[in-house]
This record gives sequence, C-alpha cells and structure tokens, in this order.
Amino acid sequence: MPLILVTNDDGVFSPGVAALHEAMKNIADTVTVAPDREMSATSHSLTMHRPLFVNKIQKDVYSVNGTPTDCVTLGVSKVLERRPDLVVSGINKGGNLGDDITYSGTVSAAIEGTIIGIPSIAFSLASHEEFYFAEAAVFALKLAAIVIEKGLPRDTLLNVNIPGGKDIKGVKFTGQGRRVYLDSIHEYYDPMGKKHYWIGGGKSSWQEGDDTDFLAIEAGYISITPLHLDLTNYDALGYLKKNWNNMF
Amino acid sequence: MPLILVTNDDGVFSPGVAALHEAMKNIADTVTVAPDREMSATSHSLTMHRPLFVNKIQKDVYSVNGTPTDCVTLGVSKVLERRPDLVVSGINKGGNLGDDITYSGTVSAAIEGTIIGIPSIAFSLASHEEFYFAEAAVFALKLAAIVIEKGLPRDTLLNVNIPGGKDIKGVKFTGQGRRVYLDSIHEYYDPMGKKHYWIGGGKSSWQEGDDTDFLAIEAGYISITPLHLDLTNYDALGYLKKNWNNMF
Repeated sequence: MPLILVTNDDGVFSPGVAALHEAMKNIADTVTVAPDREMSATSHSLTMHRPLFVNKIQKDVYSVNGTPTDCVTLGVSKVLERRPDLVVSGINKGGNLGDDITYSGTVSAAIEGTIIGIPSIAFSLASHEEFYFAEAAVFALKLAAIVIEKGLPRDTLLNVNIPGGKDIKGVKFTGQGRRVYLDSIHEYYDPMGKKHYWIGGGKSSWQEGDDTDFLAIEAGYISITPLHLDLTNYDALGYLKKNWNNMF
Repeated sequence: MPLILVTNDDGVFSPGVAALHEAMKNIADTVTVAPDREMSATSHSLTMHRPLFVNKIQKDVYSVNGTPTDCVTLGVSKVLERRPDLVVSGINKGGNLGDDITYSGTVSAAIEGTIIGIPSIAFSLASHEEFYFAEAAVFALKLAAIVIEKGLPRDTLLNVNIPGGKDIKGVKFTGQGRRVYLDSIHEYYDPMGKKHYWIGGGKSSWQEGDDTDFLAIEAGYISITPLHLDLTNYDALGYLKKNWNNMF
C-alpha cells in the first residue's frame, strides 16, 4: 500500500481534513499531521524559535503546535514510519486562487512537500456558503490515485480548487489567475468618532485571461493548476544582466 | 519630485524602515506606511475581518494595525495624496532568499505594489549578526533612482538582498535559489519528561546552481532577483492538458 500524509491549515479538527483523510484510506495507508488550531492567519514558514510537540489525537491522526509547513517536515521526518508517496493538503474551507495562493497555508504545505521531493497536492473548496467536503473528497481520491500512479513533473505541485455546489461540470487544467486591484476600502467612524478603514465588501475581481483558475471555478469546473517553486522572471533576468550591469 | 511609499514587516519603529525612509528622501517625496508592530510571523494577506486604523507617528510616517500588504493598499488609496512612483519594502532585518521568499512579509509588500501596478522593490539585509542599515540604504537609494528612471518589466518586482558586513564586492543579477531539505530536527525532553522537537541549528543549505541569490550573498555580493507573480508551470500545464484530460 502507498503511504499518504494529510495536512491542512484549518486545524486537525476541521471537517475538511477529516474528509480528505477518510477518502485517502481507500487507496493508501493514511496519516494526518495537522496544526492543533486554525493557522490560516499565521506564518507559513518553519517554526524555529520554540519547541514543537506532537500529540496523538487518535489512530493515525496527530496534531502539532505549529504551522502546516512544520507538520509536513515533522510528519515526514519524525511521525511517519516511512517516506510517504504523496502529501495532500486540505480540503481548505475556501478557495486558493490566483495571486492569493502565495498567502495560503494550504498551498504552503504542498510547497514544503515538493521541496522535500514528494509529489504534493493542495485541495481547496472554492465556496462561500455551503461546504460539501465529502463530494470534494471523492474527486481528491481520484486525483491522488492518478498522481501516485503517474507522478508529477519535477519541482511541481498541483493546486486544486473545487467549486461549491453539487453540480460540477468537469475538470480544467488552468494557469494562475491575476487579481485585479479593487479599490474597495470603506471609511467608517467608531463610537468615539475615530476614523477607520475596512477592506472588502466588493466581489473579488480577476483579469480576463484564457484558462485561469478563477474562470474555471466561475464556470463550475474543478481547476487544477500546476505550480512550480521558482518565481524568477528569467526573461527579465536576461534583460537586466545585459542592460543594467554597468549601472553600479 | 517623484513620490515613494516605504513599508516593511518589522514594524514602523524598526531601524531598517527608518534608514530606507531617510535615504529615499534624497530623491523623492517619501511617506512611510508600516505595521504598528513586527508582522513577520503573521498573515501576509489583506485584513478583511476587522477595522484598520491609520495613526500618524510623525510627519510623513504612519502606522497601520495590519499587515505589510494592508499598508501598501491603504497607503496608496487613503494615505498618500497622489499615486506613488515606487514602493520600497524593508530594509528587512535578515535575508529573504530562495524558496523562503514566499513566506516573506517584506517581499509580500512588494508583490502587492506590483499587483497594483507600481514598480516595487524589496530590500533585505542578509546578515545574522551586525546590521549596517545605513550602508545598505546607500545602495537602496542608488537602485531606487535607477528604477524610477528606467521602470521595471511588467508584473515584475525586484527582490534585493544585501550582504552583512561593510565589504560589499559588487552587484549580481540572480535567480531564486532552491532550498535543500535539511533534516535538522532535534529531539529533546522537557522538565516533565515530555518529548518535543526543535527545528533548526543547522546551517541553511541550498542547491548548487548558477547565479542564485544565495551564492551571490555567500560570495559577498548584493543580489538582485527579478520575480514575477505567476507561479504556473506552463510546460507542465501543456503536458497535463495533452495527456491527463481523458482521465476524469
């Protein structure tokens, strides 16, 4: 049997991670190592300034007082009895689309798995209201089986977003969308008359473009985006080397 | 005079942001909008779940109870009187190199500036001991003047790391380095006999490669890496569209 490490950033008790764990058990030995609380709003990096405790919650489910990235590193090195064949992160409550993926703990965990050299997939449920984790997990199972069989390109992870609702139209392979800057900052006054700002309230907006993650979700399709770890703009690098080197 | 927005993730009172602000004043009207506390270990995304207050600290220096990304968005929309010509983030106390840049608040602020469409630069002092911010700011001034004059390629920011020490050998244009997974997790027991783990203690290690940010810093050079916002692996996307589409 293959071995799958499950993690997330919503915490070990979130229904999304439980649904993912249950689905993976159909094809693999499955171990969950996840943060002991919701970590969406904390650092995604390795925790190096304090000790990390691993607590067994139940058979094959462990919590760590750290980030999703800590969970992958500790899970692979210290919790699992052998090297896993796949790291799956999620199912996140909410989408991870476009430029915002760099802020996602769910995607960060899959990035860490990829750095370690293990095929990794991030799963997010791109819904705002109802969250059908069990339905999303059926697709996660299907894709996990394919990745275990076929592997993934080097240094590349899959960022998967599944639309809300039960009417999924199919699967699209997509590129990362581009967030449009929306000037949706509202001004209010508190009870003491002090002005403050509140960001949001508008609908997220994205640049048009062929085959982006955002467009696939809007059209009711599952979006699978292959991401790599290298953000270098090599065209720009070549240009700068050629034209800017004499400026310093 | 051009207008420059300065921010960082170490907080409005950090010496790095003060050094950067002072340097920029030589070539531009300069306004700092920075978090009211150290935000390295918090979310880099927009704060949408609570109000944000802007406090004037002194002339042209404002704090926000939010993230570096909030500071850029609010700074451009609400604090600055006109659209800035450049966003500079830093000078961060510590390097932002290789794969770890996706976790960096300093780089996130420059990403946000780029999303808004303003040329943006992240500056980090890649030292572990002494931090010569004033020396680093001299270089930041030089580069900022060049970027204001020449502009930057579309959707591209510069991630700049400056080595510690005063003997800087020169400037290299580099690609993003690749972190090597280091199995440096230590096991300890607390006073109650409970086992815990502590990550770190080893030296950061990086894959060999031509012209990476890490190698430039190791060799005593300033590293300038052009980054873009799109993490899509387009080669992999083409492959998946061709070969995986019939699997679902």
